[in-house]
Amino acid sequence: MIYFNSDYLEGAHPAIMERLMQTNMEQTVGYGEDEYCAAAREKIKAACQAPDADVHFLVGGTLTNTTVIASVLRPYQGVLSATSGHINCHETGAIESSGHKVLTLPTDNGKITAKQVEDYYNWHHFSPDYEHMVMPGMVYISLPTEGGTLYSKAELTELYEVCKKCSLPLFIDGARLGYGLTCDDCDLTLPEVARLCDIFYIGGNKVGALFGEAVVVMNPALKKDFRFMMKQRGGMLAKGRLLGLQFDTLFTDDLYFKISRHANEMAKKIHAIFEDNGYPFFFNSPTNQQYPIMSDAELAVLGKEFGYEYWERVDETHSAIRFAASWATTEENVAALRKGVEALKK
Amino acid sequence: MIYFNSDYLEGAHPAIMERLMQTNMEQTVGYGEDEYCAAAREKIKAACQAPDADVHFLVGGTLTNTTVIASVLRPYQGVLSATSGHINCHETGAIESSGHKVLTLPTDNGKITAKQVEDYYNWHHFSPDYEHMVMPGMVYISLPTEGGTLYSKAELTELYEVCKKCSLPLFIDGARLGYGLTCDDCDLTLPEVARLCDIFYIGGNKVGALFGEAVVVMNPALKKDFRFMMKQRGGMLAKGRLLGLQFDTLFTDDLYFKISRHANEMAKKIHAIFEDNGYPFFFNSPTNQQYPIMSDAELAVLGKEFGYEYWERVDETHSAIRFAASWATTEENVAALRKGVEALKK
Amino acid sequence: MIYFNSDYLEGAHPAIMERLMQTNMEQTVGYGEDEYCAAAREKIKAACQAPDADVHFLVGGTLTNTTVIASVLRPYQGVLSATSGHINCHETGAIESSGHKVLTLPTDNGKITAKQVEDYYNWHHFSPDYEHMVMPGMVYISLPTEGGTLYSKAELTELYEVCKKCSLPLFIDGARLGYGLTCDDCDLTLPEVARLCDIFYIGGNKVGALFGEAVVVMNPALKKDFRFMMKQRGGMLAKGRLLGLQFDTLFTDDLYFKISRHANEMAKKIHAIFEDNGYPFFFNSPTNQQYPIMSDAELAVLGKEFGYEYWERVDETHSAIRFAASWATTEENVAALRKGVEALKK
Amino acid sequence: MIYFNSDYLEGAHPAIMERLMQTNMEQTVGYGEDEYCAAAREKIKAACQAPDADVHFLVGGTLTNTTVIASVLRPYQGVLSATSGHINCHETGAIESSGHKVLTLPTDNGKITAKQVEDYYNWHHFSPDYEHMVMPGMVYISLPTEGGTLYSKAELTELYEVCKKCSLPLFIDGARLGYGLTCDDCDLTLPEVARLCDIFYIGGNKVGALFGEAVVVMNPALKKDFRFMMKQRGGMLAKGRLLGLQFDTLFTDDLYFKISRHANEMAKKIHAIFEDNGYPFFFNSPTNQQYPIMSDAELAVLGKEFGYEYWERVDETHSAIRFAASWATTEENVAALRKGVEALKK
Repeated sequence: MIYFNSDYLEGAHPAIMERLMQTNMEQTVGYGEDEYCAAAREKIKAACQAPDADVHFLVGGTLTNTTVIASVLRPYQGVLSATSGHINCHETGAIESSGHKVLTLPTDNGKITAKQVEDYYNWHHFSPDYEHMVMPGMVYISLPTEGGTLYSKAELTELYEVCKKCSLPLFIDGARLGYGLTCDDCDLTLPEVARLCDIFYIGGNKVGALFGEAVVVMNPALKKDFRFMMKQRGGMLAKGRLLGLQFDTLFTDDLYFKISRHANEMAKKIHAIFEDNGYPFFFNSPTNQQYPIMSDAELAVLGKEFGYEYWERVDETHSAIRFAASWATTEENVAALRKGVEALKK
Repeated sequence: MIYFNSDYLEGAHPAIMERLMQTNMEQTVGYGEDEYCAAAREKIKAACQAPDADVHFLVGGTLTNTTVIASVLRPYQGVLSATSGHINCHETGAIESSGHKVLTLPTDNGKITAKQVEDYYNWHHFSPDYEHMVMPGMVYISLPTEGGTLYSKAELTELYEVCKKCSLPLFIDGARLGYGLTCDDCDLTLPEVARLCDIFYIGGNKVGALFGEAVVVMNPALKKDFRFMMKQRGGMLAKGRLLGLQFDTLFTDDLYFKISRHANEMAKKIHAIFEDNGYPFFFNSPTNQQYPIMSDAELAVLGKEFGYEYWERVDETHSAIRFAASWATTEENVAALRKGVEALKK
Repeated sequence: MIYFNSDYLEGAHPAIMERLMQTNMEQTVGYGEDEYCAAAREKIKAACQAPDADVHFLVGGTLTNTTVIASVLRPYQGVLSATSGHINCHETGAIESSGHKVLTLPTDNGKITAKQVEDYYNWHHFSPDYEHMVMPGMVYISLPTEGGTLYSKAELTELYEVCKKCSLPLFIDGARLGYGLTCDDCDLTLPEVARLCDIFYIGGNKVGALFGEAVVVMNPALKKDFRFMMKQRGGMLAKGRLLGLQFDTLFTDDLYFKISRHANEMAKKIHAIFEDNGYPFFFNSPTNQQYPIMSDAELAVLGKEFGYEYWERVDETHSAIRFAASWATTEENVAALRKGVEALKK
Repeated sequence: MIYFNSDYLEGAHPAIMERLMQTNMEQTVGYGEDEYCAAAREKIKAACQAPDADVHFLVGGTLTNTTVIASVLRPYQGVLSATSGHINCHETGAIESSGHKVLTLPTDNGKITAKQVEDYYNWHHFSPDYEHMVMPGMVYISLPTEGGTLYSKAELTELYEVCKKCSLPLFIDGARLGYGLTCDDCDLTLPEVARLCDIFYIGGNKVGALFGEAVVVMNPALKKDFRFMMKQRGGMLAKGRLLGLQFDTLFTDDLYFKISRHANEMAKKIHAIFEDNGYPFFFNSPTNQQYPIMSDAELAVLGKEFGYEYWERVDETHSAIRFAASWATTEENVAALRKGVEALKK
């Protein structure tokens, strides 16, 4: 059985495991105040060309999203998100559990537009029922989105302009940021992403780390007391150096980007497998996640040898499924998948 | 200026004011444990033909909705509601503030169907991402709805059957219950409503009381410690007897229903005013709220003499507005409105 | 049976009832935006000599405390309070329910000192575990306290100086403010109270109103979006004019202070009854609540004719109890109590 | 510099690192549903002699405590804890953030007694203000406590009897459970601990794991939907197998207990160092944490070579400090400490 279900099927990049082994018996202080965290922070700030940013390390996307959002919002404010946003769909109501409504904007491709945000802001702001409705307090987007799609530099710039105009901090969920930034279609760099939002995170868990996400706080107004929020929500790892070590490794010699690029190469091959065999796609994704549409009968056969993620029913006999490549995906496994798909056609 | 904006423009029915005056200097114990609350509870239980129900009095719809919903749900559960549900739109995120997501079902007329609830339940229950999504934990409907529409006995029966099948307690927001039960189109009685849900409230604030709502807990599993919830959420009035006195009065000699029927009579006349003058309606409401669609130019003129509630833009030059009748609406004011509308046509 | 259990046994001062009757059929807009609320706000601001203050009306002390505190604090902050503070003891965890810890300071007489606040602030601020502990974010006191005691002008001034030094907004719970300000021992005026805190409320429920509390926001930094908080927490009364009318009446011709003074006169007589008969007191209260200590045997006898509030066990055979006078307490009832207590000694 | 500040200074036991390396490139499903988690669960259940228990893996003590407590309590309930309990002192209000009050019981040695719990329960239950106070809903203890002390089998049995009598589920925080169970003074076994509570956790983070805690749910009533709670609060690790692998290793060949015993041996030597040199102790701890009292002048000298945790000021010139031994503490470092302490006496 070969699995393409997700990008967190394996452990960590070998370079990270090696660092963890080498440093295992060293003694460091806890809670992210050690020298490895300090070094990782410096490398991330350099990579972002953001010398004044604050960088914090947390474990897990849900915890990171909740901590950031609960830190930014006032109690009566909500967060604008695409209906397909991870915070709206797949975090068991973590945001609501922290007291805040997710205010959803419709989307086909996982993205929201500057116009949608501005219209929502105006609709609320000029309503006679203003105080009876949740005030939009920030904007959440994923880069790449849950469907593997990407904001262009023009789209992100326009969105951020509106956010600033409406005083809505923009938060970018970068759980798969590496896969977004290194795909062929992307015209954004990491420093540009950093400059075009107020706070974002660089996902490690799905991009080569054992676990861990690095929150980068660009807007000084959002920096105050963030570590209190982390501790309260359970996100301050006692052995914080484990996170520092991993991000230090990922941001040494461009490892984060190199392994992301590899995943995208593998994803292109996966895309070609399905395209060559005539399958349509549910999302037009240039990144590491691919979403072919197949008949349920074919899925039953393919599923005997290959793991995939069931995404959504398309019609009575067809479904969209996800194949994810990652830093760990091998040419061998992709070649086996090609054979498996081609066999369906015989 | 004559106002039709809402059903809470005036104080209370004179019979209530009289009772409050008569009893003003009496001494009673606090927090709803006095004899007036006891008497009101008995009358409400009798009117509901529900001798085993628990009855609690609170002040305000938002507080009542939040207290009930937070009492019923487990932390990871959400409440199913029409997108137009009051809890989803006009309570500034009170439900989310208590930690719970409002899980919305689309609607045109303010109602949701048994099938929608069952489909949502099944979609969640059989999803591979089951534990990553908010579990539906109860169902919220308004009777009548925010658009003045009504569930038929057949619809409510079918909905409640599905709720029981899916173990989803059904909560009916009866902020305007009297106006619903006494309109011509309604085939439900109060005892039937009580029997077709797990918990509901009888709104006083909009139906003749100065303020106050009576929560009726039908399902024994939902009774435990409800007063703790009320106190914690600020809903336990020190001078509880004020609520008891009001509901005791409303449920003496059918006053609640008599004054509701009056409002519906007035609403029918309001409806006729607009219908006779060729205006379409945004909702097909048989109850005390009427939603004609008018041109913005006409609204500007009409608004000089008559207060109405702006509801929603319909197209670039037309809007839906609300005219609400209540227990306090007079024939004189309705006659004046007819003149005002007819004048627009000249 | 004559009750002295509390100061919310009767309805409202007759002048208030009269106003409610007179205006009952008037139409006003809702949610506190009517002319009666506007007038009441002006009178309260004048009485406080605080023309720039914001004034909001809510129903109930628990709701008011929770709304104010949740509005002031950041998620990781708590509120400093005497262990005996109402928010710590008798609100069923309403503050915690909004996500905040009550940080308690020990007290014998219901008051906390400037030194206690400063020491706590410093202890937290200079702790190596700083971020692992709840940050004190504001200070809560009651004036008068739950034991009927009072802060002197010097004490309050010193406390507020420390609060400002430590950037801790000071919130005064004035549920019984009138009874505090008009007692013989009080050297504070309403404008002084207003100037010596950041936000406070003037209690109506226990001081002549049917219900209602008036929040006065002195510190401009705490004003923003307070009405959103009110609506979210269920504290925005639809018929807001009921609150406006009551406070307008209370702040016309000094009614609020006149009726408070009456209560204190009655309380002095109650105090004398117990003192003359040799009973010690649990608190040294100069205000409307008196706390004699009696034997349980005597209480059993007295309790047959007179209602009191059980306060606390003092030793195996004695208890502290509360007798509360109010705006509604009559000379007749006090005289009857004297006879009842004297009878115990025969 | 040699550190004794805590038991989370190093990485993980080498046997764990080896397993992580060996399995690094294997593919497994996520979220704790892999075979390593399954194996670890079986071993833990066997070690607890609790074949029907549920076992869940989370990252971090604060997150584990919050998830368990928020899962057990109803909204109006609080958790009874020693004032010194970790949830009360050092989790930045995480429990309150989930809506619940920590109800504190005074303690000198970190422990609470059966009598304290029963008295609190009765005091609340029979109070006339019952509904105005937070209802105790569960009991939290640490084993060993934050001061390194231990409950005896008799004490724990008596406590649990009272908990059952009062319907208060007992939760044991076992962040350092191994160090408790293997010290000389302990008369409890793991199966006994499991049988004497409703839910507990076995700490990995401080006892040989890189990170991770294993929650064991003994009481069937507390099992339902626990994974929803984990996901909502951010505690469901995507690569759950990392936790499974670690606990599988720790519960193979008694590794968890062997390394715990080593720590206690080292702690006895540390204890002897201070005892031999005439220092008193702040807590009488038989476990891995030792709390000598030293003069501030001596601390300044000792602190140049040795890291310790500052605990509490004892008097104007003396402080209590903590020296923690762990699975990783070496004989060499302990010998160096002896030299350092003895040097102070010269």
